[in-house]
Amino acid sequence: MSVYTPVSEAELAAWLVGNYSVGKLVSCEPIQAGIENTNYFVTTTQGRFVLTLFERLPAEELPFYVNFMAHLARHGIPCPAPIADLSDQYLQRLNGKPAALVTRLAGGSIKRPSDAQCAELGALLGRMHLAARSYAAYLENPRGPKWWRFAAREVRPFLDLKKSQLLEEELNFQAQHRFPDLPRGPVHADLFRDNALFEGERISGVVDFYFAGVDCLLYDVAVCVNDWCLVDDPSDRRLDAGRTRTLLAACHAVRPFTALERDAWQAMLRAAALRFWLSRLHDFHLPRPGMIVHAHDPEHFRDILELRVREDPVWMD
Amino acid sequence: MSVYTPVSEAELAAWLVGNYSVGKLVSCEPIQAGIENTNYFVTTTQGRFVLTLFERLPAEELPFYVNFMAHLARHGIPCPAPIADLSDQYLQRLNGKPAALVTRLAGGSIKRPSDAQCAELGALLGRMHLAARSYAAYLENPRGPKWWRFAAREVRPFLDLKKSQLLEEELNFQAQHRFPDLPRGPVHADLFRDNALFEGERISGVVDFYFAGVDCLLYDVAVCVNDWCLVDDPSDRRLDAGRTRTLLAACHAVRPFTALERDAWQAMLRAAALRFWLSRLHDFHLPRPGMIVHAHDPEHFRDILELRVREDPVWMD
Repeated sequence: MSVYTPVSEAELAAWLVGNYSVGKLVSCEPIQAGIENTNYFVTTTQGRFVLTLFERLPAEELPFYVNFMAHLARHGIPCPAPIADLSDQYLQRLNGKPAALVTRLAGGSIKRPSDAQCAELGALLGRMHLAARSYAAYLENPRGPKWWRFAAREVRPFLDLKKSQLLEEELNFQAQHRFPDLPRGPVHADLFRDNALFEGERISGVVDFYFAGVDCLLYDVAVCVNDWCLVDDPSDRRLDAGRTRTLLAACHAVRPFTALERDAWQAMLRAAALRFWLSRLHDFHLPRPGMIVHAHDPEHFRDILELRVREDPVWMD
Repeated sequence: MSVYTPVSEAELAAWLVGNYSVGKLVSCEPIQAGIENTNYFVTTTQGRFVLTLFERLPAEELPFYVNFMAHLARHGIPCPAPIADLSDQYLQRLNGKPAALVTRLAGGSIKRPSDAQCAELGALLGRMHLAARSYAAYLENPRGPKWWRFAAREVRPFLDLKKSQLLEEELNFQAQHRFPDLPRGPVHADLFRDNALFEGERISGVVDFYFAGVDCLLYDVAVCVNDWCLVDDPSDRRLDAGRTRTLLAACHAVRPFTALERDAWQAMLRAAALRFWLSRLHDFHLPRPGMIVHAHDPEHFRDILELRVREDPVWMD
């Protein structure tokens, strides 16, 4: 589980009444998922919330994330809305950690998205990218190209020759394929299936914005497609053409892709695969002290990367 | 009904897609209640909203109201949250009128509040007053003492001698009983039963902030008590002691009343009765051109005022 900092009911009840106008604590429950922060479901007489204690993110980056969520929420994007405290601040402290209270959204995540659910996600991506344009704060994608090079140095000693070559070749390829003219903006950058909530076929929430940053909008789409649009056989990491096209078309209907984006698509799918292969290698070979979850299998994203390098990528047409 | 400015589905659909990130229009439906603005229920592929076209409020006051709702919503108060447009503004224009899109809350209003529902309302008032303290904008209560004197001049020609005397005596009493040292802040000032939504015994929403302004917090409580806590017999306007005490105690538990507030209670109940007697007299005798709803009966609040003058007021103890 991922509760690094315990919070007792008594501590939480006093903290809520002293700092917020959300009523009295009814119950709280630790959330098992997630590897970065400590999270609790919190129910008060007023409503349902999620409490996050930030364990590891740099304090100076936290305002970017919470203000980004607040920005999207007030644009009608179904994402956690941070609750301001009685001093009108989104960031508080609890048990020595920076802490935020956000609204809890209804719905559950899905394992096998349908065509209709991929269309919902694509449309939401488009809307989120449009709404994010007026968000003025800037934080470079913390898992972007600079971080790739840092992570590659750290994990290289653990790789066999073949993997090492794949990594070097991909880093070289990406260095030669930068896309300064693609539309950019603040993106989620980690919108895997477990970070989206559905009520039936309708998307009811997008959560966990703690890898957000400014990057190509198309990169955000590529991260999603690499997770949402794989063919049904779990041992096969090729893209399902139907669901990929559906997701792209729904996104395009809200924010039309440019010709440059079409040309950059394969490189972007490769970049998205590289980023998660690297982070999984890093978590696997260099787990942080006290990290109390099983790291995801890095091989999944190595496979995806190898396939994206070879494949003719699925696009809308 | 209260649709002064018609909006077609086609106009609304284009306006939403061009200006917001809330998905596509699914349906819209005019709202019959309300006398000040044009309102529609709006359902999109993303969610449920209320569209308001402002018919009469001074344009320079609108930011106070919409920013106040946004402030309370982000503090966890269940009130309509204004949706920002793609330029990050809460106020738009539609068919020549200033317009705002806000979230639609679940729940329904109640006619005969229970003890538990009065407690819910009292606690919410307390929370709302605490959360409002950090709202920096200032608008004097637009239906405060200055307006009483203006309205009294306008309606006096329509009153018989007895009513005229009651009005003069109350204006004099209030002029001699000002309370500069009571806690003040932005208040709703119109929180009648039809402006609160409940799901069972739980308060799920407070709506219609378009009479909000800065005034004594206790005045907001008095407006509520005069509407929520009347005895069950509809021909009798005395306060039900049990529900009045319950509402006050629940509010006090969140934001303790001061001794000065206890002393000002009767005058505040009278001020709240005077304000609504005056506005109903004004709407009844001097309806605005094009006003297409039946005015409320002014006699209801004359009765309340007469009783509050005579009665020993119910307080917590």
